[in-house]
Amino acid sequence: MRTSPLYGAIEAGGTKFVCAAGYGPGGIAEDCRAVIPTGAPGPTLMTVVEFFRQVARKHGALAAIGVAAFGPVDIDTRSATWGRILATPKPGWSDVSVVAPLERFGCPVAIDTDVNAAALAEARLGAGAGLGSLAYVTVGTGIGGGVFVGDRTIKGLLHPEMGHIRVARDPRDQDFAGTCPFHGDCLEGLASGPAVMARWHTRAESLPEHHPGREVLGGYLGQLAATIALMISCERIVFGGGVVSGGRLLPYIRQAASQWLGGYLPVEARAGGFERYITAPGLGESAGIAGAFLLAMQTARRQPAG
Amino acid sequence: MRTSPLYGAIEAGGTKFVCAAGYGPGGIAEDCRAVIPTGAPGPTLMTVVEFFRQVARKHGALAAIGVAAFGPVDIDTRSATWGRILATPKPGWSDVSVVAPLERFGCPVAIDTDVNAAALAEARLGAGAGLGSLAYVTVGTGIGGGVFVGDRTIKGLLHPEMGHIRVARDPRDQDFAGTCPFHGDCLEGLASGPAVMARWHTRAESLPEHHPGREVLGGYLGQLAATIALMISCERIVFGGGVVSGGRLLPYIRQAASQWLGGYLPVEARAGGFERYITAPGLGESAGIAGAFLLAMQTARRQPAG
Repeated sequence: MRTSPLYGAIEAGGTKFVCAAGYGPGGIAEDCRAVIPTGAPGPTLMTVVEFFRQVARKHGALAAIGVAAFGPVDIDTRSATWGRILATPKPGWSDVSVVAPLERFGCPVAIDTDVNAAALAEARLGAGAGLGSLAYVTVGTGIGGGVFVGDRTIKGLLHPEMGHIRVARDPRDQDFAGTCPFHGDCLEGLASGPAVMARWHTRAESLPEHHPGREVLGGYLGQLAATIALMISCERIVFGGGVVSGGRLLPYIRQAASQWLGGYLPVEARAGGFERYITAPGLGESAGIAGAFLLAMQTARRQPAG
Repeated sequence: MRTSPLYGAIEAGGTKFVCAAGYGPGGIAEDCRAVIPTGAPGPTLMTVVEFFRQVARKHGALAAIGVAAFGPVDIDTRSATWGRILATPKPGWSDVSVVAPLERFGCPVAIDTDVNAAALAEARLGAGAGLGSLAYVTVGTGIGGGVFVGDRTIKGLLHPEMGHIRVARDPRDQDFAGTCPFHGDCLEGLASGPAVMARWHTRAESLPEHHPGREVLGGYLGQLAATIALMISCERIVFGGGVVSGGRLLPYIRQAASQWLGGYLPVEARAGGFERYITAPGLGESAGIAGAFLLAMQTARRQPAG
């Protein structure tokens, strides 16, 4: 007979929902994983529910479910709209609750942003294992960031939306208007995948070795890294996503952050230098789903024993 | 006989040390307050110790002492240099421990930055009473910021140093090099008291009503407010210090932040609009010393009963 509790984990993304069940981030059974393309909310969520129904039928009841969702999403447990996707350009998804369909499993459900969940997982199990604070940034179609500090992820008015900070322009990049529909030339408008495509008509991974675009992108993202260090004082900053990894941008990001901070913060003395301070994800593509497991495990621990 | 514990509180500033003792931030006895000008570390700290010795002789032993210190300061309790001022331009103060002289009182000592302590006090007792997250910014000789979120203040690699973030330049302010010795035209280099003086040869409070400087300064500080909202998602942002209050900059700060965020965050729906979201301190000049009391009370609660 099984003694350890079974958890459900969902990484709810704009293109796919990754669903898994297991005894923790490292214990996913072969038949307990599904990737569901993100379509209209109704059918997508119905397929998710059906997956967990089958899991429960086979392996027993779920102890808790953790959801790592694309944003903006209401993660404030005191709010009447907790668990709902907020105003989003994704057709049909505005105001849809991603937790309500899970209530039928009769177990606690926790939800956080995908990047907050990834920050939690990287801080507990990945590139920052053992550290007390970590920021996780992903650069792709959009730019998102999550923060783990003081033993939890950050939320408040909403949740971190650091892709939309304003940045100082690179002198070589003064004429581009930016692609963000809200802000034009915010960080996301200048350094996301679509912004790379709009300016240089290619993907970041296809920019030639000495193309100035790498330095321009690294400069903007390094400005974010420096801003994270100065605003939140994280012990590690993790950069994931196709634009960074494909574009091999980490060295440029480190250089720009180091240049701006100019020895002002104890990065050498206390973080072992910029090579260690600004780094790739330790969990690769699995940070989000691992974070969803950790959310489920946290919320199960907080419930009174049944 | 006294039954409630007596706490010591110190606001250790660059120009003065404010010392107080009492049963909490609201319960300071008339003879339990001293303002000691900040001189060389030895004599200054000796005067502080003498003040608390007299207090203890008269009112009994201190249960705990809280220190709200100027930075940079090591507030990491796991660090070997915990409680020391780090590299600072203040003559003689680099590497000085502000907690070691207090050990003779045989009670727990807690230390945080002055602005973190002020954020804590404003979140518990001031402009954000009842909220779960708040940022406190002060603009004077320098620009400092503290953050309260998830029931504690933020620390990690160091502590927030948000005065030194890079900002996008106002088109009317392209030629000024900035006054920050580390970064030149970081926020502090563009919007602190010395930066106002260097550009316009006057203090912020003396800028004429329609001087463009107000809008320029408000724009930079509004950029910080928007960055705080996007990075940390605080429920309230408090701006204190002579440059803001004297210069009557709050309306400009709100306008710039609102303009940049452009409806992207639920400031209207969830914070009651920018008037309430970005605000003056509720505790005025007392936020730092009130925060020091709260630090003392927190650390006393965490100790096993004696």
